Amino acid sequence: MFIATEKIIHNFMTSREKILKINNEGKFICVGLDTDLKKIPAFLLKEKNPVLAFNKAIIESTKDYAAAYKINFAFYEQNGAKGFEELEKTLQLIPTNVLSIADAKRGDIGNTSKMYAKSVYDHFGFDSVTLNPYMGKDSLEPFLEYEDKINFILILTSNPGANDFEKLKLFDGNYLYQNILDRTNQWNTKKNCGIVFGATKITELKDSINSFGDLTVLLPGVGAQGGSIEEVSNLFKSKNRKNYIVNVSRGIIYKSSTEQFASDAQNEIINLNKIVSEIIN
Amino acid sequence: MFIATEKIIHNFMTSREKILKINNEGKFICVGLDTDLKKIPAFLLKEKNPVLAFNKAIIESTKDYAAAYKINFAFYEQNGAKGFEELEKTLQLIPTNVLSIADAKRGDIGNTSKMYAKSVYDHFGFDSVTLNPYMGKDSLEPFLEYEDKINFILILTSNPGANDFEKLKLFDGNYLYQNILDRTNQWNTKKNCGIVFGATKITELKDSINSFGDLTVLLPGVGAQGGSIEEVSNLFKSKNRKNYIVNVSRGIIYKSSTEQFASDAQNEIINLNKIVSEIIN
Repeated sequence: MFIATEKIIHNFMTSREKILKINNEGKFICVGLDTDLKKIPAFLLKEKNPVLAFNKAIIESTKDYAAAYKINFAFYEQNGAKGFEELEKTLQLIPTNVLSIADAKRGDIGNTSKMYAKSVYDHFGFDSVTLNPYMGKDSLEPFLEYEDKINFILILTSNPGANDFEKLKLFDGNYLYQNILDRTNQWNTKKNCGIVFGATKITELKDSINSFGDLTVLLPGVGAQGGSIEEVSNLFKSKNRKNYIVNVSRGIIYKSSTEQFASDAQNEIINLNKIVSEIIN
Repeated sequence: MFIATEKIIHNFMTSREKILKINNEGKFICVGLDTDLKKIPAFLLKEKNPVLAFNKAIIESTKDYAAAYKINFAFYEQNGAKGFEELEKTLQLIPTNVLSIADAKRGDIGNTSKMYAKSVYDHFGFDSVTLNPYMGKDSLEPFLEYEDKINFILILTSNPGANDFEKLKLFDGNYLYQNILDRTNQWNTKKNCGIVFGATKITELKDSINSFGDLTVLLPGVGAQGGSIEEVSNLFKSKNRKNYIVNVSRGIIYKSSTEQFASDAQNEIINLNKIVSEIIN
């Protein structure tokens, strides 16, 4: 009965409310499910569905500590229809009180974006999605119509190539990513917008954080890509700001490849939560 | 025996060679397979798989006249795993002498882009893909490693939102899209790059066409979006330039919703080829 009531409550919460609630519980880590047959523990390959067995074990062991799960579409799509079946089944394993993110970098002309929005929100039932803003406002609008979701728009990404175009200087002296950040703030009238800002870009993060307004922030790049969870947490603490999640993919799910991979992943997320808690409390 | 030999020849051609060959046969039209259950003729809904039945009829009736088929991933993904099964089966129906395009607007951090490239080229086996350049060079590189494919990078898109960021003026006086066009030319050392340039943006197309170099050009936006095939063909003719394809989706596949929808689609592509031929010959 308790579980059923909890489930109803979480289903009625907007994605933004879920993040605020879970941040207040001291959870800031998003677990990236970049599940790759070549990287999961070898003994799982004898399972009927190794990807699903791996995701199930990871979710079971981390769900009490995770703020969100991010499903990276690439890792599933590479197996076509079969991969999408695994994606659908993985999504069903994510508890309703933890945010689910479709990491799919969507953005297309209006009638196509409408289909993608239907796909990610109506068909799959994700709480949020990552969006690529290059094609402009009308390419994002079909997503922004979903008031209870969080639409994470790419601002400054965690990869080296972010310097190529995102950091081009505009005629008005601002960088391109700053212009897109300003526009995203304008689009956030329903408080259903978020931004993706690379944890690897700490200087720009410090320069921009005062302009984040009510936007929910997803910070990828901690771990394998070199971003520091301490630096990010200290910065957000110094601004007395929550409403953010830090993504760690390989650093958690591939923490070890032994029989204890799931409890090793659990220990790692507990450790990361502890690092953040000690900084913000 | 003739068919088998033809098939072998086409499998050994690069995607660029396929386009040059098919352009020389007087074919410039790419048929966009934006197949939507709500728009296909109602009588097909009684079929076991209406989407596949529709695509099969359209491909059968247009394959002798088409330069390419563009599969818009959104329309398939909205049905999840089942939709991807339809996508895979549709791709198998496309003859090897006609270019297949994965319209998926890909672009992500390195290890994820590598997965998407494997997906579109190794798993599905497309001849080409559309790519979103926002995240920079390393987000596209895994695709550019496939020498025999065409990687169509978004430059100036056909939608109204193209004005929001793609047409922002940079510090050096150029528009963002012009900067990306210059970089794409630099990346085209293996002649495996293409560009997406909206047929609706005829002024910018006239301003930019001299900078297209060896890039293959995909022009969406003719038909429902308002672009003119006459204007595009006249422009390319005036520059004595081929190596381009004009996409028409709704204007061909939904030309009619009667029992004769497939032959109506055929008549429409024959008509469009005729318009182009009369201009360029």
